[in-house]
Amino acid sequence: MSDKLTRGLEGIIAVETSICDLDGESGRLAYRGYDVPDMARKGVTYEEIIYLLLNDELPNRVALKSFSAELTTERNLPRELLRMIKLIPPGTHRMAALRGAVGMLGLFDPEAEDTSPEGNRRKAVRLIARMPVIAAAIHRTARGEKPLSPRKGLGHAANFLYMVFGEKPDKQDVRALDASLVLYAEHENNASTFTGRVVASTLSDIYSAVTAAIGSLKGPLHGGAGLAVMDTLEEIGDAKNADSFLEKALADKRLLMGFGHRVYHRSGDPRAAILMNMARETCRRRGAEKWFDIAHALDQGVQIRKGIIPNVDFYSAPLWRGLGLPPSLFIPVITVSRVAGWCANILEQQEKNRLIRPRASYIGASNRAYKSLRGRP
Amino acid sequence: MSDKLTRGLEGIIAVETSICDLDGESGRLAYRGYDVPDMARKGVTYEEIIYLLLNDELPNRVALKSFSAELTTERNLPRELLRMIKLIPPGTHRMAALRGAVGMLGLFDPEAEDTSPEGNRRKAVRLIARMPVIAAAIHRTARGEKPLSPRKGLGHAANFLYMVFGEKPDKQDVRALDASLVLYAEHENNASTFTGRVVASTLSDIYSAVTAAIGSLKGPLHGGAGLAVMDTLEEIGDAKNADSFLEKALADKRLLMGFGHRVYHRSGDPRAAILMNMARETCRRRGAEKWFDIAHALDQGVQIRKGIIPNVDFYSAPLWRGLGLPPSLFIPVITVSRVAGWCANILEQQEKNRLIRPRASYIGASNRAYKSLRGRP
Repeated sequence: MSDKLTRGLEGIIAVETSICDLDGESGRLAYRGYDVPDMARKGVTYEEIIYLLLNDELPNRVALKSFSAELTTERNLPRELLRMIKLIPPGTHRMAALRGAVGMLGLFDPEAEDTSPEGNRRKAVRLIARMPVIAAAIHRTARGEKPLSPRKGLGHAANFLYMVFGEKPDKQDVRALDASLVLYAEHENNASTFTGRVVASTLSDIYSAVTAAIGSLKGPLHGGAGLAVMDTLEEIGDAKNADSFLEKALADKRLLMGFGHRVYHRSGDPRAAILMNMARETCRRRGAEKWFDIAHALDQGVQIRKGIIPNVDFYSAPLWRGLGLPPSLFIPVITVSRVAGWCANILEQQEKNRLIRPRASYIGASNRAYKSLRGRP
Repeated sequence: MSDKLTRGLEGIIAVETSICDLDGESGRLAYRGYDVPDMARKGVTYEEIIYLLLNDELPNRVALKSFSAELTTERNLPRELLRMIKLIPPGTHRMAALRGAVGMLGLFDPEAEDTSPEGNRRKAVRLIARMPVIAAAIHRTARGEKPLSPRKGLGHAANFLYMVFGEKPDKQDVRALDASLVLYAEHENNASTFTGRVVASTLSDIYSAVTAAIGSLKGPLHGGAGLAVMDTLEEIGDAKNADSFLEKALADKRLLMGFGHRVYHRSGDPRAAILMNMARETCRRRGAEKWFDIAHALDQGVQIRKGIIPNVDFYSAPLWRGLGLPPSLFIPVITVSRVAGWCANILEQQEKNRLIRPRASYIGASNRAYKSLRGRP
């Protein structure tokens, strides 16, 4: 055992993977060997990405059709789960509610304890199919609205928008949301994925691993970054205030969320540029320019003054806000996307497993003498 | 970034801690600097251990009285949670049900999102107080019995036995269960505790971290070891079969659960000897000698033939079985105990936080050329 503490396990290689190739130096991001920005620009859909992540190949038209049918079949929620969601207090953090609901979802799956590769794959598709349905049901129930059942004939992103807003969504909105789902689907060994892997490494079940990952993504240092970006945009309020805001923020040494990344260095996050264009288009089209303009002004200022490039969570905030999604749904949207990456990683972990159990270095008191209760002052 | 993969992060130091001092070479195990076997032999109670783990000191009589009163106050469950538990299908894995229920529990805590040290401490006490109540409620509900409310005037271990069996427990049974709770309360950076720390490191809330830890403990390679031991004891069926069983098991290179430990080496697990004595006493007293005798015969055989010493999970199986607890409650009992260690670690993680985010090494395909759907064969 080495005696050296590596805080945050930064730079330590915990697992081998064939899923996500992430090179922070060159800014490369590939799923299963396919460049992600390239696929996003060429219009790959989120359904294709799920298929790719789970099967290591892109589907042809026949395979995609049958996979989409499988997703459609798996979307319906157990009735008991909807009854539980009704019992959740309305003001609850949406990610806490999602953690609770997914933690319960497994109890209604007769295959829950089947950790064979085939069982895991079926449950992965089920979890991915149901995540947007649960997130939307929690959202509507909390607002006092009746949850909507998924609609046949609508794809994954379209169904989510339909179940949130209650009407058939605009095609360009679907396209924008779908593209963001593609970009968030997988990101190597990030904290939530790693959480899922640690749980899976005990040979626990996929519902336990995904529930754990949801609780991890909920954190302000992880999935919560986009929420913090939105708070900042609201605080700035108008693009013309961005400069004075930034000046004061830098003087106060305030942490600006949505900039920089532990893994990406000089090159920056390759997802950010794509999201910027999508946010611009969506905000203009939907009359929400304000949010894009504030974000863009802040981004320009930070690049000039600090030379730091935005990360994935920066432009997704104005994009999703532009689509009419409330900030409370931002981390749920990331969950709806990232669950595909989690599942691929959990399956990979269990196919070639080794219990993940690092050590701690003890720095506390030693040799304290125990006195029984009566003898304590 | 180092290029070397450390499978399972074995030997890698992920965190610094002042909670558990675990030296596998010498077989030392101490909580907050107090030797655990020493405390256990001198009759420390689980309530004192919770206090020690959370406050870094043992309580005197005044402090313990007020802490026990706090535990009593915090034991009652939200009514909505009991309604949710009623909706769980009876055959469900008890740890899956516990994961779901604890994932939901936080939704009824108005302080759920308060991650200040004081807020965390209050929620830790709440979680520790409620864990046995939830575990017992799940157990009784699954058997078609009405869950029981905790009884004032009974301590932590006594309340658990009362809520499981529905009658005021025998004092020696309480003592035996309490001692096992003391021994399981904390064990450094094991997989479930590490899971909780990874989740906490995103600054997510304590309910998310504990829910994740439960899902991790559920795994057959972690909390599930004691269950596997019980299966083995049942398979052997009688102490006189232990030798022939062992001979065949060794010839078949079958993995024997409850022996050896990644962290403890030559010296063996210091908890095992204490549990052996408790299991012997309890099984004899309660007319369940059979289970102790089989375990002891197997243990002797393994030590002679392989020189391997049992770990904590070996004699806890006949002990708990001797107390009349069904195997389905074994991992829940560990949870009832270990939640104290989890909470102490989660609090420590958030007091001096650094996001835990190791890397993965990519070994998959590279530079695959993307063709859009129409172009795929």
